[in-house]
Amino acid sequence: MSDIEIIKAKRAGFCFGVKRAVNITFKAAKKGKGVFTLGPLIHNPQVIEKLCKEGVCPTENTEDRNIQTLIIRTHGIPLELYQTFLKKDFKVIDATCPFVKKAQQYAKLLCDEGYQVIILGDEKHPEVKSLMSYAGKDAIILDSNQELQKIKNKKRVGVVVQTTQPTNLLQEFIGKLVSRVSELKVFNTICNSTALRLKETKEIARRVDLMIVAGGKNSANTTQLATLCNASSVKTYHIETSSEIKKEWIKDVARVGITAGASTPEWIISEIESRIRDIGGNGDNGYPHESGRN
Amino acid sequence: MSDIEIIKAKRAGFCFGVKRAVNITFKAAKKGKGVFTLGPLIHNPQVIEKLCKEGVCPTENTEDRNIQTLIIRTHGIPLELYQTFLKKDFKVIDATCPFVKKAQQYAKLLCDEGYQVIILGDEKHPEVKSLMSYAGKDAIILDSNQELQKIKNKKRVGVVVQTTQPTNLLQEFIGKLVSRVSELKVFNTICNSTALRLKETKEIARRVDLMIVAGGKNSANTTQLATLCNASSVKTYHIETSSEIKKEWIKDVARVGITAGASTPEWIISEIESRIRDIGGNGDNGYPHESGRN
Repeated sequence: MSDIEIIKAKRAGFCFGVKRAVNITFKAAKKGKGVFTLGPLIHNPQVIEKLCKEGVCPTENTEDRNIQTLIIRTHGIPLELYQTFLKKDFKVIDATCPFVKKAQQYAKLLCDEGYQVIILGDEKHPEVKSLMSYAGKDAIILDSNQELQKIKNKKRVGVVVQTTQPTNLLQEFIGKLVSRVSELKVFNTICNSTALRLKETKEIARRVDLMIVAGGKNSANTTQLATLCNASSVKTYHIETSSEIKKEWIKDVARVGITAGASTPEWIISEIESRIRDIGGNGDNGYPHESGRN
Repeated sequence: MSDIEIIKAKRAGFCFGVKRAVNITFKAAKKGKGVFTLGPLIHNPQVIEKLCKEGVCPTENTEDRNIQTLIIRTHGIPLELYQTFLKKDFKVIDATCPFVKKAQQYAKLLCDEGYQVIILGDEKHPEVKSLMSYAGKDAIILDSNQELQKIKNKKRVGVVVQTTQPTNLLQEFIGKLVSRVSELKVFNTICNSTALRLKETKEIARRVDLMIVAGGKNSANTTQLATLCNASSVKTYHIETSSEIKKEWIKDVARVGITAGASTPEWIISEIESRIRDIGGNGDNGYPHESGRN
């Protein structure tokens, strides 16, 4: 077996908001019993499993009498739901990503200023559902510039963006929208870490023979990374853990790139890296190799 | 000679703002002597000549004791200049296009709201110079998306557009700008009549063998129409009057398109149409032909 070169994205894994939410939750777990998250805290099954072992499980049933503390996940929740929780007996800890909270406030501001609010994002995503609740009853969700024909005779349009949307979609969308309206106010709420992760991943995908994208199959931003790599015509696998890696993937491969979504923990990325090195023949074989960081 | 078909743009010639300014000026000429326009009222030498015959000539020298009434032209003037006029002995009539006035107010609003103001337009154009005076001392003028690297680390950016800019430039510019800023507010101040005239001209250019673009050589919007036609690969002539038309242009031509800038009067367009019909062989020859409107 020949030595394999691994290029790992510097920005792979936990972003600021996820790190913060996971820390808050582990801290709450230590403090007492009856701690639940409303739905999965982040889109990563392995982290959720680990949290469950610490005694913090996801729940959808807020009538459950066992709830003493309810943690609101990174994606945020609709305003009305939040308000009902304030009347309940349990304590609420808000682990909504601060960047999502900012986007919620911008959606409300645009609505208060009388703009027709557009949310650019995936209507099924919990973040977008939370944003909608702040954007007023006339707000609409669009997920591509093909949908722009829905905007007719609008004078004042305000836009907020799902924090994990790709920048090029925003660029195309706003470029087309501006000619259809008299006044346009845009809060570019795309999270910088998402944009930089996508950019770095794209650059790595160009330089390798194989890309491993690590993260929850239910994670939108991880799936986006995998889609991006596939579009670069490099062989790509989207996996959740190292156990999914097959030896034949690595066969005849000189360079492997590793990237990971914002909700993928460092230990999963490390395990993947080790497994590739083991299969690739430069695990503990004493040969000098790249540090894995570039 | 064979019959020639003429397709004349419905939106050729005077726009709302120009019509208004010319009417104001002819009315002022009738009322009394000592009426001057500050620079040429519109960018059309033939109209200016006609106004001069009525006794209203352009002047740049506002110290001239003969001035009793000074008319401000369609493109507007810088705010500071306007303020100095209010202290003078002469009467000021403001014939600034109402759409340009709106753009001036939007530039001021963006500045008052603390945005870094960008004016998208030609820095040499009098309208853009007038807009600048309302946009605050930090405002900058950009005329293409190539210049966007000048925008670095800007958080809140506000944009107004020279009213005669093409829509596709605005689209490209805003599409690129949005990814460089956190907050973007755009007043799409492109005049609808400019956009529609460009659109109609483009459609006609596709269907004819020859395009005649009528209007002042010093008119930005007329020049833009000529550039657009040339880009459509149709043989194009930008002329000011019918006397410039040469017989050989019409030879072997079946269909001619006529368009004209916003400052081109109807009588110039009519003379051009007649001259083409005369050369093309269906002037007063009794043959049935198209009405010239489509």
